[in-house]
Amino acid sequence: MKTAAVLLIGDEILSGRTQDTNLQFIAKHLQVKGIPVTEARVVPDQEKAIIAALLALHKSNDFVFTTGGIGFTHDDITVACVAKAFNVPLEINQEAKVILENYYKEDLNASRLQMAYMPVGAQLIANPLYAAPSFHVNNVFVLAGIPSIMQGMFLSILSKLPQQAPILSTEITTNFLEGQIAEILREQQNMCLDVNIGSYPFSKDGQRGTAVVIKGTNKTLIEKVENQLKNAFKAIE
Amino acid sequence: MKTAAVLLIGDEILSGRTQDTNLQFIAKHLQVKGIPVTEARVVPDQEKAIIAALLALHKSNDFVFTTGGIGFTHDDITVACVAKAFNVPLEINQEAKVILENYYKEDLNASRLQMAYMPVGAQLIANPLYAAPSFHVNNVFVLAGIPSIMQGMFLSILSKLPQQAPILSTEITTNFLEGQIAEILREQQNMCLDVNIGSYPFSKDGQRGTAVVIKGTNKTLIEKVENQLKNAFKAIE
Repeated sequence: MKTAAVLLIGDEILSGRTQDTNLQFIAKHLQVKGIPVTEARVVPDQEKAIIAALLALHKSNDFVFTTGGIGFTHDDITVACVAKAFNVPLEINQEAKVILENYYKEDLNASRLQMAYMPVGAQLIANPLYAAPSFHVNNVFVLAGIPSIMQGMFLSILSKLPQQAPILSTEITTNFLEGQIAEILREQQNMCLDVNIGSYPFSKDGQRGTAVVIKGTNKTLIEKVENQLKNAFKAIE
Repeated sequence: MKTAAVLLIGDEILSGRTQDTNLQFIAKHLQVKGIPVTEARVVPDQEKAIIAALLALHKSNDFVFTTGGIGFTHDDITVACVAKAFNVPLEINQEAKVILENYYKEDLNASRLQMAYMPVGAQLIANPLYAAPSFHVNNVFVLAGIPSIMQGMFLSILSKLPQQAPILSTEITTNFLEGQIAEILREQQNMCLDVNIGSYPFSKDGQRGTAVVIKGTNKTLIEKVENQLKNAFKAIE
């Protein structure tokens, strides 16, 4: 089974200035493709940190999605780090240059032209919102940090990723507290290792309870466990 | 300068079911203490992944804050992983047990009593919301995953962390696009390496522009760079 990792790049996330939402967006869509996200990391705009995280995630996953740091201001160093990590030189990507020329026309200054610099061998990723494309190289997909732009880029490549058995899940919401059903959940999990049972206590509008999530790739099995849990909850009502 | 890392533990974050907000809360408060967050990781509820990330972050930072996986259902394995990572046995923490007895009274069943199991030598972290305490051991602070509980726990230990020179920041919002001010920003950053200049394009209500963030520990220097940037922006209006 192919897996993915997400690398969020940016000082603004680690300082708390910006609330990341890119991980959730990417993870939700990969679930539907049946590609689990095994790990995510957040690193600052620092070469050493970016390269170390990139190589670690690249080695242990089939796909790595990075977000952030792909603009052309002095603090955007992701592209250079990707090139350095894989020991590939940067060049002006001619296809990207043409896209930028068509979009910016007479406003294409030296700063903006920097967005055409990509590692040799880069395959473009479309940017439906603002034209300036990104790219993937090896198994690394380099995406923007701004959510709206990132989402457009990500959706433009989603169909090219392999479709694996989708990760299905169903959720039982119960007013029982975890302390009342922990043993039932443990027993069910031990009896059926081909599904994954998660237990999430909640507190909403003064009402407390537990959300029980059953995940797996076998729909029949998920439904079976769901019914067994529902019956077990009924029995202790 | 002492640094921190954050380890978010939970399948629900990597599947996209849950939008994490704990990183931002912790990071914002640590900024005020002058303790930068150098890295964050998100790992699933799997022993190998938790222990590897925990040890990596523990070695390269003065403080590690974990969130998630400290309940008592079968999928809560953070406490056992912390004990295993540091090769310390688990025991019933007597102080924690008394707190649980006082809170749950006759409802303290075997499941809930598991929350008193902690590594030998653990120092309690208070849980203002639901009594059940957490703990820290070595430089690792083990916090709940539910934001309201996590926040109470985190705030209860914040005063015990060292106060370093606070990381100050100021923000200039301009209608210039990055492409118009990239060179100005680069020059200012090169001229003054004791502050950190970040550039964040935004698009809001049809209005596009750039937020320029100037960060550092020297207030006078930040104000100086802020004024120089404002003057430089005026000059190209």
